[in-house]
Amino acid sequence: MNAIGRTTWVIADGYIPAWSNGPEPEMVSHETFSVLNAGEQEATVEVVIYYADREPVGPYRIQVAGRRVKHLRFNDLVDPEPVPLGRDYAAVLQSDVPVVVQHTRLDSRQSENAVFSTLAYPA
Amino acid sequence: MNAIGRTTWVIADGYIPAWSNGPEPEMVSHETFSVLNAGEQEATVEVVIYYADREPVGPYRIQVAGRRVKHLRFNDLVDPEPVPLGRDYAAVLQSDVPVVVQHTRLDSRQSENAVFSTLAYPA
Amino acid sequence: MNAIGRTTWVIADGYIPAWSNGPEPEMVSHETFSVLNAGEQEATVEVVIYYADREPVGPYRIQVAGRRVKHLRFNDLVDPEPVPLGRDYAAVLQSDVPVVVQHTRLDSRQSENAVFSTLAYPA
Amino acid sequence: MNAIGRTTWVIADGYIPAWSNGPEPEMVSHETFSVLNAGEQEATVEVVIYYADREPVGPYRIQVAGRRVKHLRFNDLVDPEPVPLGRDYAAVLQSDVPVVVQHTRLDSRQSENAVFSTLAYPA
Repeated sequence: MNAIGRTTWVIADGYIPAWSNGPEPEMVSHETFSVLNAGEQEATVEVVIYYADREPVGPYRIQVAGRRVKHLRFNDLVDPEPVPLGRDYAAVLQSDVPVVVQHTRLDSRQSENAVFSTLAYPA
Repeated sequence: MNAIGRTTWVIADGYIPAWSNGPEPEMVSHETFSVLNAGEQEATVEVVIYYADREPVGPYRIQVAGRRVKHLRFNDLVDPEPVPLGRDYAAVLQSDVPVVVQHTRLDSRQSENAVFSTLAYPA
Repeated sequence: MNAIGRTTWVIADGYIPAWSNGPEPEMVSHETFSVLNAGEQEATVEVVIYYADREPVGPYRIQVAGRRVKHLRFNDLVDPEPVPLGRDYAAVLQSDVPVVVQHTRLDSRQSENAVFSTLAYPA
Repeated sequence: MNAIGRTTWVIADGYIPAWSNGPEPEMVSHETFSVLNAGEQEATVEVVIYYADREPVGPYRIQVAGRRVKHLRFNDLVDPEPVPLGRDYAAVLQSDVPVVVQHTRLDSRQSENAVFSTLAYPA
């Protein structure tokens, strides 16, 4: 299997809902980026977070082994700093090998969860 | 970082639900277009709103600074006129520099919110 | 404004939920295809419905005036025959001028509605 | 009608919610891939499932007759092995003829269902 996808992906509507209902960890409001690395070579993905009113933050560095998928919560990014809850952001992902990225949010601010998912934009 | 994206984006299914449940401002039914301007130069985005039964309205003009994201509610567009609630529309966005646009709706007409998001169409 | 988009669009996951909760017409479970015709010339859109276990049905013919958007419910297609509820289908849309198509479903089978929307596939 | 689409499609955010509320089979939490084969020739689709922490599994083989659509639940894949519930995965689909693939999840872990759908990534 060869590598599939692109090396630059964009998520324009980033937002982690600030509160939650339901059992942890599944029902905690969260936002995910899923990275499939279908090729043989390990991928190093650099994520830069853009905000409305301050300079971009990053890169956050993530490794995805070859022939593996990683579903990552923006909530879990901590270095260089956590992504704040309840605040508008965007993300640009740059990988050194082709990958495919999908963007998903689970919103449990009301007692029943809502969820969406969409392809990220392949630049 | 160079500019990323396209200069023309289309949202075909525009609709702001006409009523809401839950606390303001998060849970007011709304429709959002998120614009990431990853480049250095400020973006001027012109939005034209298309309707089912009348001439298009616009352009609405929005500025997005370089290296910034803006999540805008169609509910908040006022000049030349507000976008009506509960009425079908579409939007064409034209930017003078490449940007990435995502389309999101939160529908709280019933007591628990529903939400979707999708890439806008890059023309 | 020139025409924007493509002339062939595909919706692979067609399904109209078979029951509903909440007030008509907004909360009736439905599936929509939204067609933006940003150009000057009227669009004639032919829709063919594909099924799992029988021959395709159509074309259904729809007119969308220039500079107008039409949000259509598959529930409302009647000629040559209605699209059945609770049954898997797909749709191929062919327009004589470029348009943009988005696919949306509102599912109110449980007491709070769920909703999704995604770009159709531009062939 | 000629074949429409691509021969390789990717779903990066695969996840079957591990529990459900509501009547079977509609309201069982599930994840679907819908394959439209608009052409005349039968499609053989090979699906490989990628995981976070083990080697990929597959191919699963599916036939979709010409001029037919198939909506398949990942829950129903059994050979060479079932796709586990509550575990991150991704899917790569390879068809011998062009098809269009859409990715949908119904999540009924809380008492009202949530649903999303998005185009798969056409490689």
